[in-house]
Amino acid sequence: MRRVRRPGLAACGLGLLIGLAVAARPTPAPSAAAQDRAADPLPSWNDGAAKKALLEFVKVTTDTGGPRFVPPEKRVATFDQDGTLWVSHPMYTQVVFCLDRVPAVVKEKPELKDREPFKTALNGDLAAVAKLPMKDLEEILVATMTGMSVEQFQAEVREWLATARHPRYRRPYTELVYQPMLEVLKYFRANGYKTYIVTGGGQDFVRVYAERVYGIPPEQVVGTAGGTKYGFDKDGRPTLTKEPRLLLNDNFAGKPEGIHLMIGRRPHAAFGNSTGDREMLEYTTVKNPGARLGMLVLHDAAEREYAYGPARGLPDTQVGTFSVALDEEAKERGWTVISMKSDWKRIFPWEP
Amino acid sequence: MRRVRRPGLAACGLGLLIGLAVAARPTPAPSAAAQDRAADPLPSWNDGAAKKALLEFVKVTTDTGGPRFVPPEKRVATFDQDGTLWVSHPMYTQVVFCLDRVPAVVKEKPELKDREPFKTALNGDLAAVAKLPMKDLEEILVATMTGMSVEQFQAEVREWLATARHPRYRRPYTELVYQPMLEVLKYFRANGYKTYIVTGGGQDFVRVYAERVYGIPPEQVVGTAGGTKYGFDKDGRPTLTKEPRLLLNDNFAGKPEGIHLMIGRRPHAAFGNSTGDREMLEYTTVKNPGARLGMLVLHDAAEREYAYGPARGLPDTQVGTFSVALDEEAKERGWTVISMKSDWKRIFPWEP
Repeated sequence: MRRVRRPGLAACGLGLLIGLAVAARPTPAPSAAAQDRAADPLPSWNDGAAKKALLEFVKVTTDTGGPRFVPPEKRVATFDQDGTLWVSHPMYTQVVFCLDRVPAVVKEKPELKDREPFKTALNGDLAAVAKLPMKDLEEILVATMTGMSVEQFQAEVREWLATARHPRYRRPYTELVYQPMLEVLKYFRANGYKTYIVTGGGQDFVRVYAERVYGIPPEQVVGTAGGTKYGFDKDGRPTLTKEPRLLLNDNFAGKPEGIHLMIGRRPHAAFGNSTGDREMLEYTTVKNPGARLGMLVLHDAAEREYAYGPARGLPDTQVGTFSVALDEEAKERGWTVISMKSDWKRIFPWEP
Repeated sequence: MRRVRRPGLAACGLGLLIGLAVAARPTPAPSAAAQDRAADPLPSWNDGAAKKALLEFVKVTTDTGGPRFVPPEKRVATFDQDGTLWVSHPMYTQVVFCLDRVPAVVKEKPELKDREPFKTALNGDLAAVAKLPMKDLEEILVATMTGMSVEQFQAEVREWLATARHPRYRRPYTELVYQPMLEVLKYFRANGYKTYIVTGGGQDFVRVYAERVYGIPPEQVVGTAGGTKYGFDKDGRPTLTKEPRLLLNDNFAGKPEGIHLMIGRRPHAAFGNSTGDREMLEYTTVKNPGARLGMLVLHDAAEREYAYGPARGLPDTQVGTFSVALDEEAKERGWTVISMKSDWKRIFPWEP
């Protein structure tokens, strides 16, 4: 609800009569579209079970004196990123970033040029890269994301984000965020919820743009995190160097662990889209007192975005798997499955 | 600065004349004591370099349009706990907690009874315990703080805090907080700073009482942290079990690492009292643009609290060492040393 800003009594002062005249003049009626927006905090959502669950959850948890009221300091909502807040196909954005960095790494260390997995990565054959074993992919991640200072890494990410384009949409990756989820983030925050990203992606990577893109500050981004080493740079400035030492693998059971480590409270609402989010939704919703909300985004809008499962007969694309077992657990636990196709009027902010 | 709340123009409406009459009537003068409090956000501080540094820092960093203004989202201040916010002598509070838990642990595992270091710990001879090598102390910490669920551990801490008393002051440990530092926390928050604890103590331990005692919520407590293991308890509730696996040793160089991991921003102000805080103060203040504040509490008030250094000829008590080298670095870096004796009018909230 937007309140009309009115001048305080102090502003009356000498201009009292003018002030009263202004107050007496009727405010122009807002346009029908503006009225709709004011009435509906989730304008990109179609009416249905998902939208209803969101509205109902916020209503009961903010209803002072109601039986399911949650005090403001306990209002924590956690959001997976890849496939939940933005596109994760055909490949996780951060993996694309790492692959794009391989030439720079090889330039510094030419001995890697003819060695696998760097040779394949240099070829630019994404299909071949997608088939690399996890061990090889990890070697690329380590080579492209560690060994530099935190600030150098942040600068690399910023520069890449400014120029890289998604192969299908031909837009910067940061424009491939889901408008309906931006509305959920805003709606929850407007109702006193602290919104956190809890991502399998790199914490340092996501923090670079999360504030600008999602309105989520760095201290509210929980992600896969490596250790850093303290020292001084050549100018005598204290600096942290990113090390190939994993502190938190923020996926699967690592998500509740990360939530405890970084937030220290059990969320009241959690949003995901894949088997990597299962434990986070369990930790949030199962046998905890009070209102709890678990939601899973199902990618069933092939024409507008992507379609993958393999739940509900959708193709199994290996990236961001929504398994049959996850779908069954959702039913059992009372988690709401969001159908991108039916629940979302539009997917991207730039859609007409 | 407190602004008098005035009714908006809307409140004029029909009661306009009454409203104006109320506005015209002089407000009763506040009592002298209330005026002092309003005028001085740090009433337990004597005038001097330390108080001046605090007031000046907050003034310039919140002066919109001024050259050293810090935007609200970047206002981060970090505080060590032991010896900075509360008493850490004769022994770190958390170590006392662990020692007090040894009998319960031995009851569950009787085979530990005649084994060191548990035998010494069971004797209750604190002097002997203090002389235990670090390896032995760690064994006690692991035995008393891991293997249970996070919630069980929190319940143990709460129960202990309710009954344990400090040997000298005969008060609960949570009453042994420094009133001048509570004023600093409040003053910083009132000026838009997010206040964080960054402690070598256990994150899970400090989070139990930090909100109640310091007004600092769990998500703003960074501390030494171990891993947890996700699973289900016997009632089918998802649970995290504390494991003897160190994720972050939040001391010395671990403090900047912890700040990056959990906050992701370089602080503008940092407060400590010992060599374990050196790197945090460097990371905060050295060669960073804008206003930066580093402060160290010197324990030189033997009669009212404790006296230890060995800087400035104070006794070397091994707990919370303020070394000669730290004192020299403070001079070189422009860190302000707070003398408990001279800078603080009173130390504890309950002092007359």
